[in-house]
Amino acid sequence: MYKLVKIEGGVCASDGFYADGISAGLKPKNAKDMAFVYSDTLCEIATVFTTNKMTAAPIRHFKKKGEFQTNFVLMNAKNANAMTGQAGIEDIDEILATLPEKIVNPVMSSTGVIGVRLPKEKIIAGAKRFDVTKKDNNAAAAAILTTDTFTKQIAYKVLLADGSSFHIGAMAKGAGMINPAMATMLCFITTDAKIDKAEMQNLLDVHVKTTFNAASVDGDTSTNDTVMLLSNKKSGAYHQEAFSEALYKIMRFLAREMVRDGEGATKLVTYEITGAKNDEEAEVVAKALTNSLLVKTALYGEDPNWGRIAATVGASGAEASEERLKISFEDLCVYDRGRLYFDAEMERKAAAIMQRERFRICCDLGIGDGRFTAFGCDLGYEYVKINADYRT
Amino acid sequence: MYKLVKIEGGVCASDGFYADGISAGLKPKNAKDMAFVYSDTLCEIATVFTTNKMTAAPIRHFKKKGEFQTNFVLMNAKNANAMTGQAGIEDIDEILATLPEKIVNPVMSSTGVIGVRLPKEKIIAGAKRFDVTKKDNNAAAAAILTTDTFTKQIAYKVLLADGSSFHIGAMAKGAGMINPAMATMLCFITTDAKIDKAEMQNLLDVHVKTTFNAASVDGDTSTNDTVMLLSNKKSGAYHQEAFSEALYKIMRFLAREMVRDGEGATKLVTYEITGAKNDEEAEVVAKALTNSLLVKTALYGEDPNWGRIAATVGASGAEASEERLKISFEDLCVYDRGRLYFDAEMERKAAAIMQRERFRICCDLGIGDGRFTAFGCDLGYEYVKINADYRT
Repeated sequence: MYKLVKIEGGVCASDGFYADGISAGLKPKNAKDMAFVYSDTLCEIATVFTTNKMTAAPIRHFKKKGEFQTNFVLMNAKNANAMTGQAGIEDIDEILATLPEKIVNPVMSSTGVIGVRLPKEKIIAGAKRFDVTKKDNNAAAAAILTTDTFTKQIAYKVLLADGSSFHIGAMAKGAGMINPAMATMLCFITTDAKIDKAEMQNLLDVHVKTTFNAASVDGDTSTNDTVMLLSNKKSGAYHQEAFSEALYKIMRFLAREMVRDGEGATKLVTYEITGAKNDEEAEVVAKALTNSLLVKTALYGEDPNWGRIAATVGASGAEASEERLKISFEDLCVYDRGRLYFDAEMERKAAAIMQRERFRICCDLGIGDGRFTAFGCDLGYEYVKINADYRT
Repeated sequence: MYKLVKIEGGVCASDGFYADGISAGLKPKNAKDMAFVYSDTLCEIATVFTTNKMTAAPIRHFKKKGEFQTNFVLMNAKNANAMTGQAGIEDIDEILATLPEKIVNPVMSSTGVIGVRLPKEKIIAGAKRFDVTKKDNNAAAAAILTTDTFTKQIAYKVLLADGSSFHIGAMAKGAGMINPAMATMLCFITTDAKIDKAEMQNLLDVHVKTTFNAASVDGDTSTNDTVMLLSNKKSGAYHQEAFSEALYKIMRFLAREMVRDGEGATKLVTYEITGAKNDEEAEVVAKALTNSLLVKTALYGEDPNWGRIAATVGASGAEASEERLKISFEDLCVYDRGRLYFDAEMERKAAAIMQRERFRICCDLGIGDGRFTAFGCDLGYEYVKINADYRT
């Protein structure tokens, strides 16, 4: 028996964690653009990084350190420090070397334009202004944003049956793979649970598959994608099932928030695929739907064009046939295993569903037991505007 | 020794072939929407059809006939006859049964909306007005268009050393996979060359890989894709190398015309990938670039954002590294194997190249001998407009 209680505080909700965000002049108009997360004792670290072969310098810098504990993560927006070669890694060393002595094995995380060297002097000057006694999770969450329109934070206090408790808090930026211009999604999760490193990594790997990876909509895995879980074990408490559930809820919430805040997106669509040959094929179909320009523009137009959904399922590579496929918008079935009965009345009902900000599109392939749920959004004029004009 | 001479006439350029297009009331404003290609003697047929599992009724109808010769292809726009089940196939049988007796084993080909039954009466009435003595290739090419903005036709006369000659003519519609709303690309090629059926099929298969399949930009293989080569052998002449070259040129031209006419597209970009581990990986990279929203919106914004190209190469799954990758816009190298030297002057030059209507983007992966060339376009507001509003 345990209980999850949603609380305020984001990454600072966990005992012993501090955070803040400041403006170092990387973004225009004095917007916050640098942040830190600090723990007053050393943390175990679990991570999931991008699979992109053009891995950004901060990730390469992290990986070459091998096993270590840290008490500090330094973040900057506006520059991804990607495609910057050995110089990009040396820039990180130089920046981190200027941090105060109580900072141990600091880690850097960057997001922004690819192929430009970091503005090192500005970042070093900014870091000198950090105050590690601050617990301003809102400022930190704001500083890591790029084209995001709102901060993404969540925290739980987990109450165990024996009266002990622990916390998990998190913040994220980006809109997953639907936000390729920024080439980055970042997520930082803190906890004071007494969890060991191997289990942290295992739970992170498990939940990433159905949360952040289920929100990746165009296969354009970025150069900087990072999910990082830091644990300082301060609470002394732990319960595997409770921790796992809280972690899953946090990651799922943040993944959906990213999609909801996708560039130019007006709708958050949940694709529930069932009846596939196996879970892998269900995932292939779900991702094909979240990635299809054909489907995304129909969503934007609020056009219940189920034919495009059928064509995308058929093109996905998964086993499927028109005699077994069933397509529903919420609970309204619009195509039923070869039965063509989409009339004007049904079109009116389906269009009404599509006008909502959030709804489900369900495809039952009628073949096996495979299932997968993915999160996608529409694609409209604003997406083109943001991405055609980004660098200039 | 042989000579290819470009000539007028499209599908009617080959001896014994006739074609016309009429308005049957499927499209608004009396636009042409039905067409035929007729040969006054029977033809061998070679085809390449969609790999989409939701294969449209006309293709299923064709396939279930087994081996046959024909002298007639009936085409309609505005309705794809896809996801229409057994009824869709029976509709075709009913329509074709009304054709005059001299039509042998007629074939039907459709393009348009998915999931709606054919307007059978209109099509039967339209077919009654066909005049198979007409050689109006322009009308036929216009009738099969949907959101296309221009007709796509080409023809060659092939002169052989012994004084004999033959013709190949063709028409196409669609904008390949960048035109998912219409869910169809169609291409019809006629020839009077004395080529045998097996060789027709073989050459079609070979050239499809580097032409139409190199222009598929989003993986959304449609339900109706059809490339059909008809030969009536009337010329009595044939030369393999000459035929193959002419066929390749015709298919490449039409594939590029489709991309150039892509919905809302303002630029035709040729992606030349070299130095990949093998040809397959080069193709993976080329298609990742043609499909990337990130790259397509940068093209539209005429923004020489080579970082997005690097990130897409890295995410494609092909072997690649920033130390070996080289990226060029035309002959202007913008990133050279780890050397970061993209300054303001180079940005100005690269931006000037991107303002052209056609240009090359070259990526040398520096790993092996693999190469592939693909054709892509940009994505702008007009694409969203066309696809968000298509059905309504």
